[in-house]
Amino acid sequence: MKIEAALYLIPVNISDAPLHDVLPDGNSVLLKGIRHFIVENVRTARRFLKRIDPAFDIASTTFYELNRHTDPAEVSSFLDALRKGEPVGVMSEAGCPAVADPGALAVSIAQREGLKVVPLVGPSSILMALMASGFNGQGFSFNGYLPIDSKERERKLKELEATSKKADMTQIFIETPYRNNKMIESLISTLRGDTLVCVACDITDPEKETIKTMPASRWRKASYDFDKRPAIFLIYSH
Amino acid sequence: MKIEAALYLIPVNISDAPLHDVLPDGNSVLLKGIRHFIVENVRTARRFLKRIDPAFDIASTTFYELNRHTDPAEVSSFLDALRKGEPVGVMSEAGCPAVADPGALAVSIAQREGLKVVPLVGPSSILMALMASGFNGQGFSFNGYLPIDSKERERKLKELEATSKKADMTQIFIETPYRNNKMIESLISTLRGDTLVCVACDITDPEKETIKTMPASRWRKASYDFDKRPAIFLIYSH
Repeated sequence: MKIEAALYLIPVNISDAPLHDVLPDGNSVLLKGIRHFIVENVRTARRFLKRIDPAFDIASTTFYELNRHTDPAEVSSFLDALRKGEPVGVMSEAGCPAVADPGALAVSIAQREGLKVVPLVGPSSILMALMASGFNGQGFSFNGYLPIDSKERERKLKELEATSKKADMTQIFIETPYRNNKMIESLISTLRGDTLVCVACDITDPEKETIKTMPASRWRKASYDFDKRPAIFLIYSH
Repeated sequence: MKIEAALYLIPVNISDAPLHDVLPDGNSVLLKGIRHFIVENVRTARRFLKRIDPAFDIASTTFYELNRHTDPAEVSSFLDALRKGEPVGVMSEAGCPAVADPGALAVSIAQREGLKVVPLVGPSSILMALMASGFNGQGFSFNGYLPIDSKERERKLKELEATSKKADMTQIFIETPYRNNKMIESLISTLRGDTLVCVACDITDPEKETIKTMPASRWRKASYDFDKRPAIFLIYSH
């Protein structure tokens, strides 16, 4: 891959899988030529770069932290190196950056100024869960987190189930990992018995990955423990 | 990657980029151990395997074609090798299999029988377009193709624009490549001037990739020609 003056969107591993199983080799070659990174967390970014290349020259690399604590007014200045013709990378803490995370702000500024933006290939738990769910359909929606309040959550789940059936669309959402089991209980108690539920945990992990689709009625009788594991939830009503 | 009795979902390149820039090395190692493939098109599947490994033993490999011409009643038998404990691969013509394509049927049968399903990492034009659009939001929807009839299409676009604003969700869709320019004309004439429109063409192509976000009002004055190029369209109203 030829490196250019561009904002590179660099996916990061989402499990302990060997990097060559989840990232193209081309990404590492490119990364070694970048000295400016906009990152969600500096420590994890440094650790990732050292894993890509133990000799990575961290000392001469500049990191700009972009997360919910960052002043949005500062973000534009993170692109100064790019404006001068140098490549800049964007990395989130795990997976593909700039998908419903703060990195998108840097991308939107680059787009507004007509700067080149180049997304790289890497693991996306949302997309990989969708592939493995077996849910066909005309499309899909990713809904982020659902409401925490139980009445509100129930209403939202009923709405997602109805939309899935009406528009023939898979509905995807996430939960804070320590509440995964509770989420499954909500799904079981709220959804119709024949609505399909997929729970995808520890995606790409060679030992722990579990991706299971069953009707809500069968989840009711199943034993499971998904707490504290990164998970994606998908429902499909047909 | 340790090969197991599983249904492997194998992404395929979406451009002429060198394979090591868009696919993890682990995928090729794994592929070499698979002798049964469920594919959207046998010819492109064979060509892909030969690119992965010129010595690939095509002669002793079985291909099962799964596309809109396939009798759904036949699909279950494509999994017989897996039921006997052998790995089976699923490949679509380009990109990630089983995302709104016929491959999902094979996955859903595997899931129903409790067979193991393993998604691999690879290029997804939908996800990569989303990353590079710069559209922040609580989520996103992929809507497939829009209606062809111009009145219907206009109604659908207005609906997607309203949903984007109301639910803070990016709306993604596709078009038959020879009608891309016409799609942009529809967007320009239908959407509010300040609604953001991203057109992402030839994703991962080292020479031709173009990913451009502008308000509809600026697309109106821009010159473009995206016809006959694989494209993803995204809109975001905020």
